[in-house]
Amino acid sequence: MLPSTPAEHFAAVPLNKAYRLLNHGPTVLVSAEHAGQHNVMAASWACALDFAPPKVTVVLDKATRTRELVEASGMFALQLPTVPMAAMTVAIGTDSAKTHPGKLQQHGVELFYAPGHAAAPLVQGCAAWLLCRVVPEPHNQQTYDLFIGEVIAAWADDRVFRNGHWEFDTAPDALRTLHYVAGGQFYATGASVRV
Amino acid sequence: MLPSTPAEHFAAVPLNKAYRLLNHGPTVLVSAEHAGQHNVMAASWACALDFAPPKVTVVLDKATRTRELVEASGMFALQLPTVPMAAMTVAIGTDSAKTHPGKLQQHGVELFYAPGHAAAPLVQGCAAWLLCRVVPEPHNQQTYDLFIGEVIAAWADDRVFRNGHWEFDTAPDALRTLHYVAGGQFYATGASVRV
Repeated sequence: MLPSTPAEHFAAVPLNKAYRLLNHGPTVLVSAEHAGQHNVMAASWACALDFAPPKVTVVLDKATRTRELVEASGMFALQLPTVPMAAMTVAIGTDSAKTHPGKLQQHGVELFYAPGHAAAPLVQGCAAWLLCRVVPEPHNQQTYDLFIGEVIAAWADDRVFRNGHWEFDTAPDALRTLHYVAGGQFYATGASVRV
Repeated sequence: MLPSTPAEHFAAVPLNKAYRLLNHGPTVLVSAEHAGQHNVMAASWACALDFAPPKVTVVLDKATRTRELVEASGMFALQLPTVPMAAMTVAIGTDSAKTHPGKLQQHGVELFYAPGHAAAPLVQGCAAWLLCRVVPEPHNQQTYDLFIGEVIAAWADDRVFRNGHWEFDTAPDALRTLHYVAGGQFYATGASVRV
């Protein structure tokens, strides 16, 4: 049983602002649960797809345990790891739960449920979270490993996202999100550029 | 007729490294051409989809002129605008060629063709370019405005991407790429984080 105590600074994000959590292209962690089993993997290929209702896409390889849980439960969560979580992100994106059944504990992943939402566990320490229901598209899932989800609830750390806006420049740098390239190399979300 | 002189520092990227150009989640410009007409729009919702052959997804609203050119030609290019191009990016993502037929000239968009690739024009000043052939998926295109493209050629500015790696930290800051949020606000690609 996971704790239902959420992260500190865990604040609801209105659904009409949820796309902004993914719009800057961050690397995500994908979590899912089915029949008492849960898992988390890293994914670079997640993207907003629509504003209202908010939808997302995410690519989930057939070899992953998390994908099996997503397919069985029809639910997943995307969440945005922060700079201090870079090593954990690479580790849980590299080790499979199929060969490393203790990977979450080994890599220090702490899970919790958002109050009233036990369909998928969330990862502590992230900057934002999006709970999604799979929009079944078997052809996309089979041919491209591409899953579409409708966002049914969203939250963010209110030190770094509030009033519908990211505030990376005034929040602690440890709350900056990550953008993965390859080979253990990320870029942090950088300076604000206003037009 | 557009010039075929490419940007300075315009260097081919091997197709097996092309996914790295999009992996960090940058905002893109989408260009296309059909029957002598060309256009360019901005898009936040572009994402890598596969490694080999490299594929991408991009969301193209039905109201856009660029989408019509993509559907007619079966080709498009994605390219990564840099920090100095932020205002242009917002402008060509806001103004439609349908109501602003002179929008490219008005906003200073300079186009060129990559040598040997006249299927879609490319935008000068970007950090990287991916030329893509549409993989027809009418259901996705109609229902979700979601287009899949196979990358058939890729290039980057060799001051900022070389030997298969982004080098933002040693390149001029003006070559940093952009990550759009909303309302004219971007974040630049930030500091390197290595695990």
